[in-house]
Amino acid sequence: MTGGTDLKSLFEPRNIAFIGASTNVFKWGFNILHHLVNRGFTGGIFPVNPRGGEWFGRRVYTSLDEIPQAVDLAVIVVADSLVLDSIAQCAAKGIPAAIVITAGFSETGQEGARLERRVVEAARSGGMRIVGPNTMGVYSAYPSTMHVLMGSMPLQPGCVALAVQSGNLGTSISYRFLRRKVGISRLISTGNEADLTMEDFLEYLERDEQTRIICLYVEGLRRPRRFFETARRVSPAKPIVLIRGGRTAQGAAAALSHTGALAGDDAVFSAMCRQSGIIEVSTMDEMIDVTGMLMQPPMPGRRVAIITLGGGWGVLATDACAAGGLFVEPLSQDLVQTLDTILPPYWSRGNPIDLVAPSRVSVITDTITELMEHASVDAVLLMGLGYMSLRARSWMRSETIPKEAVQEASELMMEEEARLFGLVAGLIGTYRRPIVPVIDIMSFDIRFDNNPVDFLDSRGIMSYSAPDRAVAALAKAAGYHQWVRRTSGMDLQP
Amino acid sequence: MTGGTDLKSLFEPRNIAFIGASTNVFKWGFNILHHLVNRGFTGGIFPVNPRGGEWFGRRVYTSLDEIPQAVDLAVIVVADSLVLDSIAQCAAKGIPAAIVITAGFSETGQEGARLERRVVEAARSGGMRIVGPNTMGVYSAYPSTMHVLMGSMPLQPGCVALAVQSGNLGTSISYRFLRRKVGISRLISTGNEADLTMEDFLEYLERDEQTRIICLYVEGLRRPRRFFETARRVSPAKPIVLIRGGRTAQGAAAALSHTGALAGDDAVFSAMCRQSGIIEVSTMDEMIDVTGMLMQPPMPGRRVAIITLGGGWGVLATDACAAGGLFVEPLSQDLVQTLDTILPPYWSRGNPIDLVAPSRVSVITDTITELMEHASVDAVLLMGLGYMSLRARSWMRSETIPKEAVQEASELMMEEEARLFGLVAGLIGTYRRPIVPVIDIMSFDIRFDNNPVDFLDSRGIMSYSAPDRAVAALAKAAGYHQWVRRTSGMDLQP
Repeated sequence: MTGGTDLKSLFEPRNIAFIGASTNVFKWGFNILHHLVNRGFTGGIFPVNPRGGEWFGRRVYTSLDEIPQAVDLAVIVVADSLVLDSIAQCAAKGIPAAIVITAGFSETGQEGARLERRVVEAARSGGMRIVGPNTMGVYSAYPSTMHVLMGSMPLQPGCVALAVQSGNLGTSISYRFLRRKVGISRLISTGNEADLTMEDFLEYLERDEQTRIICLYVEGLRRPRRFFETARRVSPAKPIVLIRGGRTAQGAAAALSHTGALAGDDAVFSAMCRQSGIIEVSTMDEMIDVTGMLMQPPMPGRRVAIITLGGGWGVLATDACAAGGLFVEPLSQDLVQTLDTILPPYWSRGNPIDLVAPSRVSVITDTITELMEHASVDAVLLMGLGYMSLRARSWMRSETIPKEAVQEASELMMEEEARLFGLVAGLIGTYRRPIVPVIDIMSFDIRFDNNPVDFLDSRGIMSYSAPDRAVAALAKAAGYHQWVRRTSGMDLQP
Repeated sequence: MTGGTDLKSLFEPRNIAFIGASTNVFKWGFNILHHLVNRGFTGGIFPVNPRGGEWFGRRVYTSLDEIPQAVDLAVIVVADSLVLDSIAQCAAKGIPAAIVITAGFSETGQEGARLERRVVEAARSGGMRIVGPNTMGVYSAYPSTMHVLMGSMPLQPGCVALAVQSGNLGTSISYRFLRRKVGISRLISTGNEADLTMEDFLEYLERDEQTRIICLYVEGLRRPRRFFETARRVSPAKPIVLIRGGRTAQGAAAALSHTGALAGDDAVFSAMCRQSGIIEVSTMDEMIDVTGMLMQPPMPGRRVAIITLGGGWGVLATDACAAGGLFVEPLSQDLVQTLDTILPPYWSRGNPIDLVAPSRVSVITDTITELMEHASVDAVLLMGLGYMSLRARSWMRSETIPKEAVQEASELMMEEEARLFGLVAGLIGTYRRPIVPVIDIMSFDIRFDNNPVDFLDSRGIMSYSAPDRAVAALAKAAGYHQWVRRTSGMDLQP
């Protein structure tokens, strides 16, 4: 088998047989079917259970043979002892792909491993590919939403693919993407990888036109050489962001008992990642942060201009830049002269550029524009946003001041702030270099409507809750883009 | 002056003169006075402005002389050119303390520095202590809320003190504490430290009965030796959590232009912190994480038992423990035997303890209880919480399933989960060792009422949005408690 090259039946099935349908809400046979039905899949869904009957108004078929149409994909949630038989029936019917949710196979020991091998043999003898067993499931956003997942997160369609060697990390990571309005193209919990493996899915994602960024959680690779060769081919076009589980001896022991994957040496693995252009990150939050940064235009070099509305933020951001290999260089003389015409006399004339409390939004946007016009600036970090509307809100909640005294000023500040965020979005489009907003008010309260984080998220611009997170992500993205330039012979830097 | 030893007039004033009161909502003379009036200060507030008149129903005094009572504290927000005169008047009236919000002093250059020195001389000649100039302000929760801050965050009273050499970091950090329902005893933005310095405030907090944990943001110290001597004395009783700004050469240059403080060598500074028991952290989020962990009972050693509802979470947590010097040791034979009586036959028999999908809440709490009964466990990390109520909520939002079909099960799951969180809170109290909840659903949505994060926060138990954050904080807290034991000669470990 060439593997991973034609998984259309898995990701774009017309008809799905759901084997093990149940009306018991505590069973996966209920919950996963519920997700599939409830999330707008436009193909055929055929619940199967030998007992027949109805599933909330839908006919339940007593066997695959009863299904009147060709089935592209089987979802299997029956008891472990029944999986082999189900697979054999699917193969007999010519179903080309199955997702085996059921657990109790190689992850439980020798006996489970033997059963798993028989399941795979039964599948292969019928030309059938399987995901799992012991998988949290698969989500595919195109052509319509196929939500075959244990988790109930209402994922949005988008261009980020996620393949994970742990179902709960798939859930945790995709919830984080959901919150930041980052859409998912495909989500694969690889399970025990008895047949299809991480390498197959990476090859599929390489060719998948819906996927632009690939996020992976890896505990161990069956065929590392093939994995890294594929990654090196994929990376220039589609960045790969990877978390490795089991990096330490203690963690590797935990991974061994989890997926049975034997982890290799951490330093070797990281070196392979670097050579293949893979962006290795340490945490789930960092994965989301970096993915958001990859949605910005590429950073042509490593020089950052920092705009801040307060000294301490600028200091922490500068420290973070230095730690991440980004440069916060003094402003050139001509740039200082230009900014002199925009900024009040007491401005810092240095980088970070401390605007203290600018009187008008145009001071901020004019400053960004001049920085972007200047060749010495590869990215702008914009800190301290969101406090204007916060103050306006605090005025309106006052028990001391009559509303009339603050109404007009409050509306003005909310409008100015909204205008600022709109302008920032426009400037990124115009100059095609990153402008990275840091909005730390979200760290305590994003519950109000029309908040700036949601506003920017819905325009595909990720903001960051702290300068350290923004800069760490920017440094990773800069490193990736430099790798791409170097690999393609376009890098002019040493 | 001995400094910092008697700042009662500053933190517990009976009467405050607010010099520079304004009805213009864009001025600090409006906003800070508004905060002070609006947040429940029970002492006297006397707005002062030579023009007199009214401030939203309050009399504005044309001069200090008009104020009929003794004043303990002056808040000064007048223009920089008027500050010296105001201070002289305060000194003449015998006011013992002032908070000088006004900027435009040593941070602007030589001329400002000269003016600043004259301000300090005027204050000292009248026996007056000042905070600032160029400070974001001071907040004091006791005996009643004195909110003399630029920022409008509605801080809660509590036992955490915060002293910062950057007003915007004071705002950012205290908003983070606010969100997690961590109360603040005192918040001091030290400003230019022309008179009172970081060292004075640390000495004050040492004696302050309302303060149990001290958080600091430091760019540079005027008297490092005194600072670290004080810290070493304070640390065994009150942990000090510190962020250093300007750790890198680039960051130090930014700090120089910000506070004018000359940063020392980073490695030396960190070594001094370690010797003094100071818990050095890198980011604002880490400061909140560690402070929350310090509200848990101390960890007697470094051995962590991990309870997880999924393999990947356990692997990442184990990696984080290894990286932080915490031990995830195999379970002892007798503990395995005890847990065999609680857990289903397929349980992992290892650490992490993977409960997969426990059928009842009692499985989780019984497991924790057995772990806590066992001397080999110094802390329990409890992961994967919050998903039960999430599923229940997803059922109730279904467009496919009638509400009747899920109502009962949904209520059961919500109740079970609430019961679980209540039991965890109780077990921490019973066993006096840390149980650390990881609730990563908050990373995407904490907007629903009665969510577990808020539930635990309101009981003083911090939960963490990811295993890495929980473990990093646990490792810092463990290191601190070990330092305390070692310092007091109580440490039995090598």
